[in-house]
Amino acid sequence: MVFKVTPWEVKGKVDYNKLINQFGTKPITDDLIEELEKIAGKSHFFLRRKIFFSHRDFDNIIKWYKAGNEFALYTGRGPSGNTHLGHLLPWIFTKYLQDAFDAELYFQLTDDEKFMYNPDLTLEQTHNFAYENALDVIAIGFKPKKTFIFANTDYANTLYKIAIKVAKKTTFSTAKAVFGFTNETNTGMIFFPAMQAAPCFLPTILKGKEVPALIPAAIDQDPYWRGIARAVADKLNYPKPAQIHCMFLPGLGEEGKMSASDPDSAIFTTDSEKDVDKKIAKAFTGGRATVEEQKRKGGIPEVCSIYKYYYFLFEEDDKKLSEIFNNCRSGNLLCKECKAELASRIKRFLKKHQDAREKAKDKLDLFIVKD
Amino acid sequence: MVFKVTPWEVKGKVDYNKLINQFGTKPITDDLIEELEKIAGKSHFFLRRKIFFSHRDFDNIIKWYKAGNEFALYTGRGPSGNTHLGHLLPWIFTKYLQDAFDAELYFQLTDDEKFMYNPDLTLEQTHNFAYENALDVIAIGFKPKKTFIFANTDYANTLYKIAIKVAKKTTFSTAKAVFGFTNETNTGMIFFPAMQAAPCFLPTILKGKEVPALIPAAIDQDPYWRGIARAVADKLNYPKPAQIHCMFLPGLGEEGKMSASDPDSAIFTTDSEKDVDKKIAKAFTGGRATVEEQKRKGGIPEVCSIYKYYYFLFEEDDKKLSEIFNNCRSGNLLCKECKAELASRIKRFLKKHQDAREKAKDKLDLFIVKD
Repeated sequence: MVFKVTPWEVKGKVDYNKLINQFGTKPITDDLIEELEKIAGKSHFFLRRKIFFSHRDFDNIIKWYKAGNEFALYTGRGPSGNTHLGHLLPWIFTKYLQDAFDAELYFQLTDDEKFMYNPDLTLEQTHNFAYENALDVIAIGFKPKKTFIFANTDYANTLYKIAIKVAKKTTFSTAKAVFGFTNETNTGMIFFPAMQAAPCFLPTILKGKEVPALIPAAIDQDPYWRGIARAVADKLNYPKPAQIHCMFLPGLGEEGKMSASDPDSAIFTTDSEKDVDKKIAKAFTGGRATVEEQKRKGGIPEVCSIYKYYYFLFEEDDKKLSEIFNNCRSGNLLCKECKAELASRIKRFLKKHQDAREKAKDKLDLFIVKD
Repeated sequence: MVFKVTPWEVKGKVDYNKLINQFGTKPITDDLIEELEKIAGKSHFFLRRKIFFSHRDFDNIIKWYKAGNEFALYTGRGPSGNTHLGHLLPWIFTKYLQDAFDAELYFQLTDDEKFMYNPDLTLEQTHNFAYENALDVIAIGFKPKKTFIFANTDYANTLYKIAIKVAKKTTFSTAKAVFGFTNETNTGMIFFPAMQAAPCFLPTILKGKEVPALIPAAIDQDPYWRGIARAVADKLNYPKPAQIHCMFLPGLGEEGKMSASDPDSAIFTTDSEKDVDKKIAKAFTGGRATVEEQKRKGGIPEVCSIYKYYYFLFEEDDKKLSEIFNNCRSGNLLCKECKAELASRIKRFLKKHQDAREKAKDKLDLFIVKD
């Protein structure tokens, strides 16, 4: 089965074990999970279910922290549209990490990248999306005093100074090999990886001491860290950033990740209750042609997008998740009922998120940093 | 005769007429000079002597101005070291233009470029040079209320927003063709032409109306405007920048331009009287082997670096310049005397410049813009 994972494209059915080999990362082991959960004081189902499944140097970050040192969290979002649940997934885990380590979080909104990459988007649009997306970030509940959210074009004076140091050490050959750039790639996109690498070193620069970054993000962003930030860190005498990688949240269709470019595949944080009902009603399931057949043969939760949503976000309790799985398999749980339950959980989640998002409008000043 | 002129390299004896053809610019005609001098209310020997010899759309700028519209001047400096007389040449003419048109001047100090281009320079060094060079700019006598000097890394928030619009419309293919970039070029240098193009559009953006830029600069900078800024202006709906090009100030050796990388070829604005005496004493002349021979055969002012300095900077009066030329040719003016006179003029010039430069230290705030 052919699949392709780059920072701009995820195609086909992703084989995550293959990615670990292909990207040269390490799987998150049970020992590592245990150690993290001990520090956090609680477990997280993203770890138990290996939704966060891979890492680079996360073990070293834990050692560094246990030796009494500080590290910073860094993640971000390409603001090309509204936020959907797939975007929230790594942010929810980032909050778990912030709480566990009482760490600062640097959150980059790449309005420059999304403008330069997409011929149809203006900078005004991506800049507006950046601030819309920031509301979703704040709504997750990060600590205001320890969280710094910035849109690249409003923080360029700080970032550009770092990015040109990264870019000076990055040839076109390297960028081409890492990102597949061609002669037709625009010169802004060629420079951009240096802007995305810059916040890896920002905590160290701001604090005037070694403060490595730990980056929780979907695995498709790995080339930035592997190919650029980690490659130049030594040359610039900055600590190498560590990563912890998650899977993509599947879409509501038969295959593929939740994608903003296919609105039916995605639940957006701004969706109405009606939108949710409609999208869940249309979602692909592992159900049978008729109720009668399903009662007899049972459903197929392994392929069901509804089941995946329980798994990834809406049923934290492993025992209850098992029950859903088994009741589907046995034909006791029918799609209609299962969908209705998921829809009501999503609506409950969105209601809470949208309230927090609304309140975030008055809190932007506490989080946004600008030059 | 082979010569090469790029923004980073000037080699061989430059054939300026060939450059006009090669770059596709227009020669500055006598009619254009007459028109400019009428507006300025005075003549300038840089024009009479065709030291400013070529242009793009300068005629249109004059039309635009005569129709009651505003334009802005834009020039700059790559701060890789101290300022020498070769740098001052276009700035002196820029002051003439500012006075003539009462135009705003945007002055870019590309500390980013010089850092990224030169493996041996740190950003701290180029940033310091930028502010050293700014003192020389201010010493020229520009109007404080109409002159905006910025180092790129201190004004990146403003410039980056424009540069990414330029870069989005510039493929690697184009940048390669214009600047000769290779796979080994670093990704910062590949992006940089967009940063240099940005100030072309800054006056239009700041004023919210069409304010074209006129760029007085040495001809080697032309690829930036031709290949990047002018190429994207229409696509971005900004006015195309106009240019007026000058020759390079020759060095004190037998051939080549005044160059910071060959300190003996150049008089720096920070040179002492002793430095000047030493450099002029060593300078290449059109003199003969012995005084006796020179009195008999006369000197060769056409090849003499000392004569070039009278021509380019230190004898504004055409009649007096002719006398120097003829007296040399006839053997009446000997090198020793001629050098002593030039040295004393340079020292007088530097004394005045260094005083103004010292005073400029208290005026930086009036000129420097930062984000």
